[in-house]
Amino acid sequence: MIRIGIFGYGNLGRGVECAIAQNKDMSLVAVFTRRDPKTVSLINKEVGVYHVDDVLSFKDKIDVMILCGGSAKDLPEQTPYLAEHFCVIDSFDTHAKIPEHFENVDRVSKKAGNVAMISVGWDPGMFSLNRLMAGCILVDGADYTFWGKGVSQGHSDAIRRIDGVLDAKQYTIPVDSALERVRNGENPTLTTREKHTRECFVVAKEGADLARIENEIKTMPNYFADYDTTVHFITKEELDRDHSGIPHGGVVIRSGKTGKNLENTHIIEYKLRLDSNPEFTASVIVAYARATYRMKKEGMSGCKTVFDVPPAYLSPKSGDELRGSLL
Amino acid sequence: MIRIGIFGYGNLGRGVECAIAQNKDMSLVAVFTRRDPKTVSLINKEVGVYHVDDVLSFKDKIDVMILCGGSAKDLPEQTPYLAEHFCVIDSFDTHAKIPEHFENVDRVSKKAGNVAMISVGWDPGMFSLNRLMAGCILVDGADYTFWGKGVSQGHSDAIRRIDGVLDAKQYTIPVDSALERVRNGENPTLTTREKHTRECFVVAKEGADLARIENEIKTMPNYFADYDTTVHFITKEELDRDHSGIPHGGVVIRSGKTGKNLENTHIIEYKLRLDSNPEFTASVIVAYARATYRMKKEGMSGCKTVFDVPPAYLSPKSGDELRGSLL
Repeated sequence: MIRIGIFGYGNLGRGVECAIAQNKDMSLVAVFTRRDPKTVSLINKEVGVYHVDDVLSFKDKIDVMILCGGSAKDLPEQTPYLAEHFCVIDSFDTHAKIPEHFENVDRVSKKAGNVAMISVGWDPGMFSLNRLMAGCILVDGADYTFWGKGVSQGHSDAIRRIDGVLDAKQYTIPVDSALERVRNGENPTLTTREKHTRECFVVAKEGADLARIENEIKTMPNYFADYDTTVHFITKEELDRDHSGIPHGGVVIRSGKTGKNLENTHIIEYKLRLDSNPEFTASVIVAYARATYRMKKEGMSGCKTVFDVPPAYLSPKSGDELRGSLL
Repeated sequence: MIRIGIFGYGNLGRGVECAIAQNKDMSLVAVFTRRDPKTVSLINKEVGVYHVDDVLSFKDKIDVMILCGGSAKDLPEQTPYLAEHFCVIDSFDTHAKIPEHFENVDRVSKKAGNVAMISVGWDPGMFSLNRLMAGCILVDGADYTFWGKGVSQGHSDAIRRIDGVLDAKQYTIPVDSALERVRNGENPTLTTREKHTRECFVVAKEGADLARIENEIKTMPNYFADYDTTVHFITKEELDRDHSGIPHGGVVIRSGKTGKNLENTHIIEYKLRLDSNPEFTASVIVAYARATYRMKKEGMSGCKTVFDVPPAYLSPKSGDELRGSLL
């Protein structure tokens, strides 16, 4: 049994708890929270909830600690701190800061002799892996990543900060015609506006100026100004009834050419359609937690990403079984 | 520079020659053939063609030997034989015999201290990898593999063996409605007939009994009897004009469920659309030839498959570069 700890219990932590229950070679040992542990209720009532301050007393009881905090403030501190005492895995997703995070985590985990995986999930994660592999196969070509249809938490939050807004949900939607051009091997150069549209469902406070809110959304720099954005004002009841899910997904496409005169076109497409973004991310993390455990057992240490892991390490099956059934 | 040899120069060998030209860290050292080398003309006239009997004199001049023979008779003998003297890579694709082939190649290559990769391409190969990874992520779910639209060499050959047939080309085509059910997360149980149809373009000899030929095709056990098959009789000119390509492709889909009560459905889809089956297979092989070279440099030996290779090994870029640009 691989003994797992969960550090932070929000949507992702709950997803990890569910995913562990689906993997028979793993057991959840403890959940750690910054809140009062008595106020945190797990799905599995037999697992203990502890305050984060007590985590070091579990040093010999947990094989892999799964960090479920946020990338902005939690993980840059938590992952290096915990990598000194545990094998860890996180889903750090601030793409621009991955090299810095890697260095910080690598230093600590190497010194401690632990394996620490960072940026595991679907983007970064499975999408990154597909960009890497497709680019190595089709050397002369172009990469395209489309996100959605799905909920962007960051964009929803940005709308909620506007004066007069009670609640909001934002969907990122790929533009079908752009996708078709890429799939046809046209290798188009696409602007931000040509790739995605944004659709917003907004609950306004009573008496708020709807035209002003709509204008503030559509002209918001970075978030909306570069996109064709649609705004729908709905009631709180409608929002809760129709938009409570956290679906997401997207597609990575590599279009490339081969042959004596590069006369043949090939399209590699990797596509995800996810009912629950955090539960899918959690499922990827849990598979890589198994790989983390195995790398540690083999004597490896230091920071790793999905690029460094032999795919067989994700599976509880032996090499013989995998070759016989899946190759 | 990674020094490559090509052993066998048919469609796949030619594809490998093209792919090597697209990879700046590789050079093609020699091509080996069973024919009279004088009769074999490469795209790159500066590369030497040698008889297979001379291959051992290249023992210290080639880092990775790429085997481009057939799975039925060539590779079961050639791969173990050459793995004693070279790091090798093949595209052995008789799925049922992979475990046996693995054992034979593993024994020799371990003893010799060489790395030997087998069954590299897209199926087995990239499709296998996606079946493995998607299954580890979505533990509760079902796998679906659809092939085509594309040319099946085996089925085309089977038609050509029928009395009265001059030439033929057979396309395997996935059934759209079945694909849609899978993509919708219905997890259907599909019969052979429900998954693919077969379309045949046949050139008959003058005066041949077309009705008999069509009946022989449609009732041929294993090849056609279990499928809805369409037969078109066309002229040799039409066949050469409209059906000379070797396109292929297909899709691997994993549909799985997560959540407290498995209430959320996720779809992972990996799709290929290939203008040239042998050139794409060659492109995959050449990327894994780089990995083979790197594994040997790190002191590894023995038989490996795509399941055993860290994805970063496919790339000429460093870990820093990959994390900074693709993660």
